[in-house]
Amino acid sequence: MPIMDSKTGKIKRDYTIEELVEKAREMRAYNMVSLTAAGSGHTGGTLSVMDIAAALYLKKIRHDPQNPNWEDRDRVFWSTGHKAPALYVALGEAGYFPVKEAVKLRKLWSGFEGHPHRLRLPGVELSAGSLGQGLGVAVGCALNAKLEGKNYRVYCLNGDGELDEGSIWEAIMCAAHYKLDNLVSIVDRNGLQIDGPTEEVMKLESLVTKWRAFEWNTIEIDGHNMKEILAALDEAEKMKGKPTVIIAKTVKGKGVSYAENVVAYHGIAPKDGRSGKESLDRALEDIGDSSFTKEKVNKLLKIADDYQKEVNKKIEASMPQFSRNYWWNSANGMKVEMDATRNGFGRAIKKLGSDKRVVALGADITSSIRMNEFYAEHPARKKRFFSMGIAEANMALVASGLAKEGKIPFIGSYGVFVTGRNWDQLRTTVCYNNFNVK
Amino acid sequence: MPIMDSKTGKIKRDYTIEELVEKAREMRAYNMVSLTAAGSGHTGGTLSVMDIAAALYLKKIRHDPQNPNWEDRDRVFWSTGHKAPALYVALGEAGYFPVKEAVKLRKLWSGFEGHPHRLRLPGVELSAGSLGQGLGVAVGCALNAKLEGKNYRVYCLNGDGELDEGSIWEAIMCAAHYKLDNLVSIVDRNGLQIDGPTEEVMKLESLVTKWRAFEWNTIEIDGHNMKEILAALDEAEKMKGKPTVIIAKTVKGKGVSYAENVVAYHGIAPKDGRSGKESLDRALEDIGDSSFTKEKVNKLLKIADDYQKEVNKKIEASMPQFSRNYWWNSANGMKVEMDATRNGFGRAIKKLGSDKRVVALGADITSSIRMNEFYAEHPARKKRFFSMGIAEANMALVASGLAKEGKIPFIGSYGVFVTGRNWDQLRTTVCYNNFNVK
Repeated sequence: MPIMDSKTGKIKRDYTIEELVEKAREMRAYNMVSLTAAGSGHTGGTLSVMDIAAALYLKKIRHDPQNPNWEDRDRVFWSTGHKAPALYVALGEAGYFPVKEAVKLRKLWSGFEGHPHRLRLPGVELSAGSLGQGLGVAVGCALNAKLEGKNYRVYCLNGDGELDEGSIWEAIMCAAHYKLDNLVSIVDRNGLQIDGPTEEVMKLESLVTKWRAFEWNTIEIDGHNMKEILAALDEAEKMKGKPTVIIAKTVKGKGVSYAENVVAYHGIAPKDGRSGKESLDRALEDIGDSSFTKEKVNKLLKIADDYQKEVNKKIEASMPQFSRNYWWNSANGMKVEMDATRNGFGRAIKKLGSDKRVVALGADITSSIRMNEFYAEHPARKKRFFSMGIAEANMALVASGLAKEGKIPFIGSYGVFVTGRNWDQLRTTVCYNNFNVK
Repeated sequence: MPIMDSKTGKIKRDYTIEELVEKAREMRAYNMVSLTAAGSGHTGGTLSVMDIAAALYLKKIRHDPQNPNWEDRDRVFWSTGHKAPALYVALGEAGYFPVKEAVKLRKLWSGFEGHPHRLRLPGVELSAGSLGQGLGVAVGCALNAKLEGKNYRVYCLNGDGELDEGSIWEAIMCAAHYKLDNLVSIVDRNGLQIDGPTEEVMKLESLVTKWRAFEWNTIEIDGHNMKEILAALDEAEKMKGKPTVIIAKTVKGKGVSYAENVVAYHGIAPKDGRSGKESLDRALEDIGDSSFTKEKVNKLLKIADDYQKEVNKKIEASMPQFSRNYWWNSANGMKVEMDATRNGFGRAIKKLGSDKRVVALGADITSSIRMNEFYAEHPARKKRFFSMGIAEANMALVASGLAKEGKIPFIGSYGVFVTGRNWDQLRTTVCYNNFNVK
């Protein structure tokens, strides 16, 4: 069901497959402009999921951009919140707001946050970012439809890396238990996560066998073939008594030559900015939407730039200022050299690694937190590093088992994850057992 | 490998299958005495796992009770800490301490805590209780053996209910990733959990298909057939390149007629105490170890009783006491009527349930926290109650999805689980989204 008028029930806009392919191209172009304007963001995943996003928002789901909270709309949950820029251009193309607005990505007060915020932008169903959570919410939403006899359908966009998370498997089990045939998970199977190929970080294959064992209907497709995407979405709708997972084989960074299948392009914007080898211009050339002329791109970047200038003005106006500088707020002796905590962590673990009892466990952000310093210049230490995937709970437990046997394990992730996603594991297993887990 | 002398490498004690069957009978008898003496504890699971415990501690694992921390010993992790009484009688029979000591179950300072504490009792590998954690620790322990080229083997006793927990599936995935063929999980598949049959609480079947899909070697056995148990343990040892799961079909409460397959006997001691319909005497009669004469049982109960008296004396001696009572510490007007918080919760949710937006989500302790009051006298409300299994993370997420659609979901579990096992889900999904989850 394409874009609707919720009042009249009439179709507002429909697309042919050829038009959708063109739209996906245009969306990729807007996406790259917005990432470049922001100077940061997730190139890889936004490009791998883009054809699916186009298929959903411009063709498959029943929704009305003029009535974002329409009760009968189909719901799409983005469990991988970091792919927000793709969501924004999809919403823009669908008509929730002018698509060019999305170039204000990651700018203060714009609503186009780095990770989506449902209270700040129409059409966003879920504020997300911490992985492994969207599918459970989608289950609740689908359960509500069953309870109330509603016909809306629920879609959840999942990444492959986040399938390491146990909370995902709880949701998978639960959806099958309640026979939620109004629920579809689409896995953006691009095969890469931050630390490397998924199969090296934490083996997922045979992924389809796993979902099938959990009693889901499974469909495997080429996630860049618009016809296959639409056919799979239609097929899922016919399934009775089971939720459906569409495992969409995709290419991370799809459409931009220098980003395709490049692990480093998980979480960065074009390295060389506007022009150069790994630049926006080169990306647009690869994408090949001829409407993105130099002038158009200039205009778009100016929207972002002007907006940022306004933001800067407002910030400056709200800052207390002195009529002049004094020694205590400006003299050189009063300044400290700043360094990120993670750099200190990296230096420390590099040094401590000479103790053979020290082992390191990574949760797919090993370089981000500089844990790679542990083995970077000491290849022999690599065997004392264990990739745990995005599974912080298990990481704390495995570290406990190693500590029990006399090792000194360091577990690493961002603070919120490594305390918040394994709080009970820390309480019961690490603390009660008095295990020396760092 | 049976019980060894770690110094000489000689076998200390070996058992025939017939002797093991007798030993398991004796262990069940000691178990029931200790539960009765304690007046509380988990009858169901301790009896369902007992034959497996006997097979492991008296026959299969290489260990030396006189040298509990022997580096080359095989390790057994009890992920289901609540089955501790079975662990204690197994350790006692193996020789870690006189088995009759185990009747001091749940008594202060005895070391025989309701859930095992590894720092207080020799032979206990892991302090546990909060479900879903033991397998991850076992993975870490097995990983250490691989890293150090050690030959010890690692066993993990898992319940079936705890397989609802996502952290278990993280560990399952991780063990396969690291090809831990020195690791065996034994699932005590008794088919019941606190809220009812596992398949009603959260469907697990086909369980063997799920483990197989996660690339484990799988063996299915009758968990009360000593020959099958031992054969499976031997077969697991031959497997190369994969961890093994032994799914042992068992009967909860096995051996005690009034407890067999009775959900209520998950977490209680014989209702009628020493004698009567559901009593210790009746249990011992069912178990049929003729050595448990009235005199022997009396003696055992006296050990527990005398110990408790000593404890009481010590407690009293340490309490500040007045030479006489005053109005402010003894008058009737100074006393308050106490009631458990959960009773208040039960009354409140019963009342609030008249609002059709209110839905309740249970995590397998629905009656324990009086959430059943929601529907007890209002059968029509049952469709607004959702069993989530032992999966607190997913419970918070599903509740979020329901809240998003206008429901007012109450999620229920013990405080530590419902904040600690879903801390990040509360932070990211419930709070950032401003979902009305209670």
